[in-house]
Amino acid sequence: MTWYKNAAADINKDFQQRAMLHQAILTKPAGSLGLLEKIAIQFAAMQSTNTPKIDKVHIAVFAADHGVMDENVSAFPQAVTAEMVRNFSRGGAAISVLAKQLGAKQLNTSLDVIDLGTVIELEELSGVISKRIASGTQNFCTQSAMSAEQCEQALKVGSDVVDKAFQSKADAFIGGDMGIGNTTTSAALACALLDEVASKLVGPGTGVDAKGLEHKTKVIEKALAFHSDKSTDAFTILKNLGGFEIVALVGAYIRAAQIGLPCIIDGFITSVAALFANKLCEGANDWFVYSHQSAEPGHSIVLKALNAAPLLNLGMRLGEGSAAANVVGLIQNALALHNNMATFEQAGVSEKS
Amino acid sequence: MTWYKNAAADINKDFQQRAMLHQAILTKPAGSLGLLEKIAIQFAAMQSTNTPKIDKVHIAVFAADHGVMDENVSAFPQAVTAEMVRNFSRGGAAISVLAKQLGAKQLNTSLDVIDLGTVIELEELSGVISKRIASGTQNFCTQSAMSAEQCEQALKVGSDVVDKAFQSKADAFIGGDMGIGNTTTSAALACALLDEVASKLVGPGTGVDAKGLEHKTKVIEKALAFHSDKSTDAFTILKNLGGFEIVALVGAYIRAAQIGLPCIIDGFITSVAALFANKLCEGANDWFVYSHQSAEPGHSIVLKALNAAPLLNLGMRLGEGSAAANVVGLIQNALALHNNMATFEQAGVSEKS
Repeated sequence: MTWYKNAAADINKDFQQRAMLHQAILTKPAGSLGLLEKIAIQFAAMQSTNTPKIDKVHIAVFAADHGVMDENVSAFPQAVTAEMVRNFSRGGAAISVLAKQLGAKQLNTSLDVIDLGTVIELEELSGVISKRIASGTQNFCTQSAMSAEQCEQALKVGSDVVDKAFQSKADAFIGGDMGIGNTTTSAALACALLDEVASKLVGPGTGVDAKGLEHKTKVIEKALAFHSDKSTDAFTILKNLGGFEIVALVGAYIRAAQIGLPCIIDGFITSVAALFANKLCEGANDWFVYSHQSAEPGHSIVLKALNAAPLLNLGMRLGEGSAAANVVGLIQNALALHNNMATFEQAGVSEKS
Repeated sequence: MTWYKNAAADINKDFQQRAMLHQAILTKPAGSLGLLEKIAIQFAAMQSTNTPKIDKVHIAVFAADHGVMDENVSAFPQAVTAEMVRNFSRGGAAISVLAKQLGAKQLNTSLDVIDLGTVIELEELSGVISKRIASGTQNFCTQSAMSAEQCEQALKVGSDVVDKAFQSKADAFIGGDMGIGNTTTSAALACALLDEVASKLVGPGTGVDAKGLEHKTKVIEKALAFHSDKSTDAFTILKNLGGFEIVALVGAYIRAAQIGLPCIIDGFITSVAALFANKLCEGANDWFVYSHQSAEPGHSIVLKALNAAPLLNLGMRLGEGSAAANVVGLIQNALALHNNMATFEQAGVSEKS
């Protein structure tokens, strides 16, 4: 059996129970902190502690190009993938600004960008780690996006990134994505795994119009038809329809779940990766905190399949880990409330009559 | 004309327009930061600047007791209002923990608690300012909750708090509420102003059961019937059905809008106060940022009347300013993105094809 099929670590049900009981005696009406209570309980269970914390976060943005761009599925040209990697490196992209913001809030934050294969080969860039597998995937409408070896290689890149985060004592891992065309790839992947039709998973991505959306739907239908006689196991689907950055995210999430590192899932692309991680690695979903309901319409179907209720719904649809970075502050607040609020007894406050 | 009927300051439409144009040239698909873009544009318009900021926040929690507690409308005993004021002072309440968290994130945060009249008279407490009007309001089922003079006095307390925040160079004001029974008061106020039936605005508050909810509905119906022959102007409704802490919030929001200080509105109680502020003071709503859709069912009706789309929906229903404190980090992120992201031109990133 290959490493990515090993089960996830168990979360600690004992500390989960203790955290639930603790929430019930804090000076507030029962349940009145809503999802902030759930987050604190989940972190207590993941971290096996009465006092969960999120003092250090590792962010990794995985970037790669997509062969399906031959079918002209995006509002932006393919060059943007590499151009945005430069923008990450120089600190101008949304995730760069957000990582800096987290750092300014006395949170130890590291941001790595991992190039798994842009079509334009990049010069050496500060903060960018080259793990190039190929200059983008193949067009999955007419062949497999990648070979089985390349798929295993991408999974391993993600796994190695998480090992590094774990060794550096990160309390949580955030994965982000960059790849022009990757909402098409993600929709195709989710359709194949969930046996859904393309029209239900497709969306505007970076901003195609109605005509572009229709075309994108047909491209996904073509790809699903081409691969319809293939095996339906998750690894084969990933290999046939995946993108390098998405497969790396799958590998990262699986490894994190296996070693017990909480993951903050970003938006549509990363949720599709979480879906595959959970399919390959039993119990992985216990280690995922969902940050945001994307404006991308297919996201709700993927979240439902994961039984996930994201914390935010801000109409974001950017990727890069940008939504996940935005919930870190909320998680910090949730844990501070859990750890530092007084109990009814401590505060001498009367309980419910 | 009395001070609270003066119109709000104008927000700056020129900077609003500039901020919209600036968002469109940042390195992201247009609109892909969702509500974070709207928040940045609103702050640019409120602060008349290209580079909006939120470095300093003033939080004021207004506390008072409610005569309608004679009708037994809450899951908690009335003593809890005063007990929670002590808990705020000692740092054990949710808002105390959140204010400390904001401080830890290099944000200059001040928290004042203003006692407008708890039934239990409080000893001197650190961080608690005594502005007692009476030992709670009267039971509005059988008389006016307060006199016109008391209502003006409470409005002025709120106004003075905001003047202090403004003088201390706060970038935003957060009002919070504490008062056992105040969801009943707020529901009655909103019913009277919006001409709605009690059953649509009533909710479990701190946690009454189905039977308690039915009773609470009847109490509000009784109060509305008792005052039905009175004038329907906002000030008279406030005087007849208000609570001291809610009226102080109205005064605070009005003054903030008049002098141009952005307000972060918390949940159900504070949104009812915002509704009255906007009714009394034309244009006040331009200065309000809505933080959270409360689990309290009546909140959606009040938000609709204010044309408000809150940033969060976390199932919270605590009050104290706790939801507003939770969005400060998101606003900081929104403004940092607005101010610090690279443009397509700066980053050499290709635009939409």
